This record gives sequence, structure tokens and C-alpha cells, in this order.
Amino acid sequence: MNGAQSLIRTLVGSGVEVCFGNPGTSEMHFVAALDSVPEMRGVLGLFEGVVTGAADGYARIAEKPAATLLHLGPGLGNGLASLHNARRAFTPIVNIVGDHATYHKQYDAPLESAIEPLAESLNGWVRRSDHTADVGADAAAAVAASMDPPGRVATLILPADISWGDGGKVVDAVPPRTAKAPADATVAAIADVLRSGEPVALLIGGSACREAGLRASSRIANATGAKVFVETFPARLERGAGLPTIERLGYLAEQVAFQLDGIKHLIVAGAKPPVSFFAYPDKPSDLVPEGAQVHTLSDNAQDVIAAVEALAGSVAADTEPTLAEPARPALPSGPLTPQNWVDVIGALLPEGAIISDEANTSGLMVPMATAGAPRHDVLTLTGGAIGQGMPVATGAAVAAPDRPVINLESDGSAMYTLSALWTQARENLNVTTVILNNNAYAILRLEMQRVGADLSGPAAKALLDLSSPEMDFAKMAEGMGVPGSRASTAEELAEQFERAINEPGPHLIDAAVPPLL
Amino acid sequence: MNGAQSLIRTLVGSGVEVCFGNPGTSEMHFVAALDSVPEMRGVLGLFEGVVTGAADGYARIAEKPAATLLHLGPGLGNGLASLHNARRAFTPIVNIVGDHATYHKQYDAPLESAIEPLAESLNGWVRRSDHTADVGADAAAAVAASMDPPGRVATLILPADISWGDGGKVVDAVPPRTAKAPADATVAAIADVLRSGEPVALLIGGSACREAGLRASSRIANATGAKVFVETFPARLERGAGLPTIERLGYLAEQVAFQLDGIKHLIVAGAKPPVSFFAYPDKPSDLVPEGAQVHTLSDNAQDVIAAVEALAGSVAADTEPTLAEPARPALPSGPLTPQNWVDVIGALLPEGAIISDEANTSGLMVPMATAGAPRHDVLTLTGGAIGQGMPVATGAAVAAPDRPVINLESDGSAMYTLSALWTQARENLNVTTVILNNNAYAILRLEMQRVGADLSGPAAKALLDLSSPEMDFAKMAEGMGVPGSRASTAEELAEQFERAINEPGPHLIDAAVPPLL
Repeated sequence: MNGAQSLIRTLVGSGVEVCFGNPGTSEMHFVAALDSVPEMRGVLGLFEGVVTGAADGYARIAEKPAATLLHLGPGLGNGLASLHNARRAFTPIVNIVGDHATYHKQYDAPLESAIEPLAESLNGWVRRSDHTADVGADAAAAVAASMDPPGRVATLILPADISWGDGGKVVDAVPPRTAKAPADATVAAIADVLRSGEPVALLIGGSACREAGLRASSRIANATGAKVFVETFPARLERGAGLPTIERLGYLAEQVAFQLDGIKHLIVAGAKPPVSFFAYPDKPSDLVPEGAQVHTLSDNAQDVIAAVEALAGSVAADTEPTLAEPARPALPSGPLTPQNWVDVIGALLPEGAIISDEANTSGLMVPMATAGAPRHDVLTLTGGAIGQGMPVATGAAVAAPDRPVINLESDGSAMYTLSALWTQARENLNVTTVILNNNAYAILRLEMQRVGADLSGPAAKALLDLSSPEMDFAKMAEGMGVPGSRASTAEELAEQFERAINEPGPHLIDAAVPPLL
Repeated sequence: MNGAQSLIRTLVGSGVEVCFGNPGTSEMHFVAALDSVPEMRGVLGLFEGVVTGAADGYARIAEKPAATLLHLGPGLGNGLASLHNARRAFTPIVNIVGDHATYHKQYDAPLESAIEPLAESLNGWVRRSDHTADVGADAAAAVAASMDPPGRVATLILPADISWGDGGKVVDAVPPRTAKAPADATVAAIADVLRSGEPVALLIGGSACREAGLRASSRIANATGAKVFVETFPARLERGAGLPTIERLGYLAEQVAFQLDGIKHLIVAGAKPPVSFFAYPDKPSDLVPEGAQVHTLSDNAQDVIAAVEALAGSVAADTEPTLAEPARPALPSGPLTPQNWVDVIGALLPEGAIISDEANTSGLMVPMATAGAPRHDVLTLTGGAIGQGMPVATGAAVAAPDRPVINLESDGSAMYTLSALWTQARENLNVTTVILNNNAYAILRLEMQRVGADLSGPAAKALLDLSSPEMDFAKMAEGMGVPGSRASTAEELAEQFERAINEPGPHLIDAAVPPLL
């Protein structure tokens, strides 16, 4: 058994069943080994940012890691932005990076490049396999490291000769550590804060954004009057009819100031105290209201659900959560606007949908429009590195082939990782992409004002403008084998969206939604 | 004057007149400052790999650096693969990476990420501006560092508050060091080798691939009988009628063994002794023939042209170079093949063309077909990180608006950085892209056999296959505002190519060329 075979067999034995890859010559033995381990599904991406983003989306839904397969430093470099988002999502990923043969590195061949510094920049786990006999153990350790709470990117660097060498050994899965609940005393102290009568907000994140955490948080709010918020960019948020609707903390500092106005205590569970996404001249970076005290119920490496449930048990033993009633907006009509397109989605969102949300400024009103829609998951842009939406949708659809995946995608962000559409077509994935095409980096127009920069000049304006030439995403999609259409009215969007979610396979709708700003 | 203004004015004063950028919030003051310094041209790319690759292509033609503008670690990550190629090309680039405000970094906001480790992986020059008053000096130092022979990527990290702060100072250009010719004794010793009567090969690279170096090398070959080769992947090679035709060293170890068979001495000038691109089981990595002695006439940091001219002066004082006669292949007819499409290019290549060559396996016969075509430049894939061709073509066209740029591009590689087409349309650049569309990672099929991996299984085959779904590059191009067409016969390719090079602005031809292998 060669190293590659021991690697793949060990991964499969550890529960890793999908490998998103974009291989090169140094990964050819890994590719060949896929045929000897049919339990591993290889999914090809045409660009590494698609590969790593798909692995992120897969694990957010599958709740276990996928592997990636990348080609030396440049391949890892291309995958870094998506891995940055995965890091912020605490997504487990087993990131396999092929390298030159050990004896070949000294020759500084053209693709010779630093790999460790790039991998280490992700603050995860990094190891280089030095011996074929160790590859299986390294793979098992990588899987365990990726799943060690709260989850991380584990990168295993695999030199070509270690991969093709003989003497590989399959190693049993190493069980990851389990997350622990916080100490009783911590829960008791925070319960006292909630009982103090002072204004309190509870900010939840991580696994508390799933049903159990949301229910417990809603009970706490109902019993104590505390405000409850979900972190601004949750990796996976369960929403819809039958679940508590808990507002997300805003993106803008001004929104957060409004939401947290007057509180004296901020309890965080699986989330960090809020900070501004960017710095702005003469505005605070720390968004905890002045004078408010922060109490950490649970960090992300702990069992956040157990933490909020314990707190609810203490302060809200007999209180029920508030659950959203089924409710859908009416189907709108007329030309698309930033306000009405979200009602189309809210009116038609299918049962069990997964929304990969990178609608940015165009999507501000999506939460309102979908609060009473059938139960669904929302995957958000956790790390701010744009280009996440399409790859994450792709991976989510691989993880949940029976669920409809809806990708709400900004035009500017879409252009980073557009070739995800080809993988969606190749794998016949049920992804409906709605491009919110406003011909602009609209968020930067907003940000330019907020940082106090002067956007009145033509050179500055031009750099935020995507209208020259206008992009036709339907054509681009068709070029990659995905049926594409264009909508400029709410009726067209509704008709095309309904057809897309009812037909198998991927579809793209290029929706001409004017900028909000 | 704020920091951003002092930065841009210093860059302009140092001769940097183009900034390829994809900015975010932390770069907004840089963007705004463009309007106060109209001498700096901002060119928007929709993805950072396009931005950095365009800067590479620009400098290969303009012989001076462009600036980039990138957004934190993820932006730099997206640009790394193209910067890797630029590093291998010794291209001067002033790489500006925006970062969070200095006081904001402590809050670990979502986009907080390591920048220095990524920049340092390029083995270039890295500095972080810590004070607004220093930004001008830092910029001048970055330009000088980028141009210090043989050229490199100089990365300047610019925190948002340093950029928006007041007190910026414009700093005069710092002259870069000039390259020195090698010592007379070195030249004399190598002249003796050439006079020894033993079989000698001269391998030239770097600036010796330009006319002066080629002429001197041809004279040396004619006077001494030495074989002369150009390095496998030159950053910029001048070719065509009226210039010496010097064969490039092959990509495959087997080719190199054939080319260097029997030599006892290998003289290198601006190039490294040849090594295998990848390691292959039981094949050597070092491609210098056994027993041959390597002599370094000049490394790339020295004046390589002066070196080969001095050598020619010593051993070939009265010898003329051999210059290619004007000669073009006949226009072929019938269905496109890996053999005949190159004759279309050779027959129709316009005067003064710049070829951005990422045709990979499909392009093996381009050099033969174009040897007697009108004088042109070839920019090759220096670092092996695919996705270079379209961005480099884009930058080259910005540098030389009056020259026709021809991008010969593989299908698989094109999908990495396809949005370069949008920038070509926006800037109305004279780039004609010919996609060699063989529906495969054909090079990997070749490599799989060469590394001894078994490609007979369906899983392995599938990962190298791009035919499901087939890609329609003409549609994708039209979606980005570039006129697209499809050719499946030589006549169609000729007709479309001729029209494309005669019409202003970009064009794309999707050429159905079957795989060579």
C-alpha cells in the first residue's frame, strides 16, 4: 500500500468521505488511489478557492470534515481566502497540500514555494508527512485536530515521494475531544446577573445558533426580559417557522449601538463581544456599550448548547420559547427593487432550504422576509473574504443532496469564484443561484462615506463601478453548463425561481436589483 | 496631505504610473487619493489574481513596476499564485496591501489575518508603514527594492489609519542599484572553456532573452560550435524574423537529456542549471548531464547582457549572428488539430505582437510555427502556477496599447482568472484570446503516466476530465463584455483571428483543438 492509499483509507475510516480537489502532478498518486478506495468521493473544482469553500460549506451542513486536495504553495494560496472564512466559521477541514518530493525540494524547481507559512497563517493545525509509514497516523491526527472543539483547518502537507512510496499503514480514527459544559458556578453567577433586574443582553454564536440553542435563548429572554442576539455572521443559523426568531447583531456600528442601547451586562455564549468590522475615523472599534460588563457563559471550545440550556434551566425552567408562526410575504409585482426581491424569496422559499448568503448590501431585508418561511439554514460570510457564497453553496449541496440550496449572491463577490457553477453542473447539484446584480461594489460606496473618504472624483467612482461593461451572469452560467435566465421584474424572478427550485440540478437567475444606496 | 496621497505621489515620482487594484474598505482613502494624483491610472480587476498577474505582465513589457492594491490577508492570498509567477520572472512589482487601522488589530475583527507571512513567502521585500510621515519614504524604498536587480515583489503593508492620517510627505525617487557586469577573469575563464574544443552548451535566461543577448549568444554559437538554449520558461523572449532563433530548453527531462546529450560543459548566463519541473520516480531531478561541468557566466542579479556580449567579444569578435528569415506557414484547412492551429497563428501573427503563452500541451508546436513570423515577444509561465495567461495579457496590453496582444490559453488554466476578460473590455485593451479547448487537464494525463500512477480507474480519469459539462468560453466572454466566437476548423480560426486582431478592443476565440495526448 502506498502512502496515498493509506491516507485515503484512513480518512474514510475517520468518517471523511468527500474530497474536493484541484490536483497537479505532485498529487497524481492521490488521484490514482481514489480508484482503490471507492468510499471516497472526489469532487473536482476548477479553482482552489472553490475547492476550499466547498469543503467549508460541506462541513457546515454535514457536521464533519471534507478533505481538500491542493497543489503546492500556489494552490494553497488560491484557497486561502475561503480557508480564512472557514477559520472564522470554526469549520473542520482536512486540507491536503501536495508538495515536491522530499529530495526534489533542494533544486528550487519553478513551483517550489513556501507552504507552511501560508498554512500556519490560518491558526489551525499543520503537519508535514516525512515518512510513508506515518501518513496514516498523520491523517488520523489531522481529522481529530480538525474536529477538536470548536473546529479548525488542519493542513497535512504530503510530499510526492511520501505519497507514492510503499509501506503505508491505515490507522484507526482518533476520537476528537468532546466539548465540555461550563462550570456550574459560571452558570450560577450569570443566572444571578439575569436575575439582577439590570438591563441585560445575551449574544449567542457557534452551535447555539442551532435549534436547541435558539430555544434555550428564547426561553431566557422570555423569562428574564433580556435582549437576545445572534452573532453578526453565524456559520450556520437555523431559522423559519417553528423556530425562535432571534435577531442578528448588525454589521454597522450604528446598528449595534442601537441594539445594545442601555444594557448594563452583555452575556456571550459561543460568540465574542462585538467589535466593528472595520475601523472608522473617530468611531469606536469596541462595540460593547460604555459601562456595560461582559460575562462569558461559554466560549466556542466549550459545549455552548449545554451552556445556554443550563442557564435556561436555572432562570427559565417553566418558560416556553417564542416560535415563529408560518408566514410568508405576498408575491410582489413590478420592477425589481432592493425591497421587493426579498419578498419573492420569502414567498417561495422551499421547505428545508439551505441559504448560502452573500447578498451583502442587497440582502439587508432577507431576514425579515424569510422569518416565517419554512424552516431553513442560513450560512453567512463568516470571515469577510468575498467569494464565499458559490463555493459554500456547492459544498452544502454535496452534503445534503435532498435539500434545495439557495445561493443569494452579489455580483462583485460572484466574480471571485464563479467556476463553482461548473462543479454544480458536473455534480448535478440542486443549487439555485440568484445574482443580485446592481453593477457596483455597493458596499464600498457605503464604506467610503463611512470612513470619511471623498468619493466625488471620477477615478474613485470608477473603481467602485461594475457597470462598464455590464455583466451578463446568465451567459456566463450557460458557458459553464448551468441554465441561466435574467429577471428584471418581481414576476419574472418569481417565475424563474419557482422553476429553478422545482427542476433538478443547478440554475442561475441574474436579477437586476438596483443598489440600495 | 494624508498618507495615501503621499504614497501615490511618491510612486508617480518614482515612475510608477499604473495601479492595478481590487480595494476594500481599508483601502478607501487610497482610492479617494487617486483623484488628487491624476498621473496614476487605476485599473480595476475583479479578483486579486488578475490584479497581481496584470502587474506582472505590465512590468515585463514596460520594464518598470506597476503598483497593486489589495485588501488584507485574503486579498493578498488571492493574489499569491500570480505573485509566485512574478517572483520566478524577477518582475518588479510594488504590492500595496491595506490592513486594519493599527489600533483596530487588537480586536481580531473578521478580516484580521496574517499578512507578513504571506508576503514573506515571496522572498522579496516586505515593510509595514507604521507612521503616516514615513509612508512616502516607504513607498520610495519599495520601488527601489522592486527594481533592485534582478527585480522582485516589494510588499508595502498600509494600515488604514496610517493611510488616512495627516502629515504625509512625498519623497524623491530612490535610484535602484544597477546590475554589474561579471569580472573580466570570469569571462576569460569561460572563453577558455569555449575554446577548449570540448562540447559546450550555453544556457541563457533573464535579460539575455532580449535582442542583444540573443545576438551575442548566436555569435558565440556560430564562432565556437557551442549549442545555445534559452531557459525553459523565460519571462520575456524576443523572437521572429530578423532575430536569432534560439531553442528553449524542453519541459520534459527526456527532452533536456536529448538537447544536452554529450556536453562536457554547461555555461549559464542569467539562468540556473536545469532541473526537472517535478520529481518522477527513478528519474533524476538534476538535468545537468552526468560528468558535465557547470560554469556561471552571470547570475540574474548581474548585467547578463553585458556578460554574454563580453563573452562574444572574446570568442566571436568577427562573427555575425544567424537571424531568422521572414517565413510563415501556409494557412491550413480542415478540422482543428494540435498541429494545424499553430500554423494559423504563425501565418497571421501581426507585427509587434506580444504573446502571453499559457497554451501548455496544446502549444508545443507554437515556437516552430512562429519562428519566422514578424518580430514579437513571448511571455511564458515562469512559476508554473496556472492562471497566468489572461492577467499577464491584460497587463501587457496596458503597458503597450499600440501592440497587439495574443493570449494563447488552455481551457483549464483559463478558468482560474477568467474575469481578466472583464478588465480587458473595460479598458478596451487589444487582446485576442485563443482558448485551446480540449476539455481536459491534458498535461496531467501526461504527468500521471510519467509519475507512474495508474490512470485507468474511473475516479482518476474523472478528475482530469473537463468535458462534463463542456465549457463554452465564447458565452462566458460575452457575459463579460468581450466579443466571443467558436472555431472548430482552421478556416474558422483564421477568419476569426484575423478579424479579432484588426478590430480594436478584446476578443475571444474558443478553439476546439483536440488533446495532443
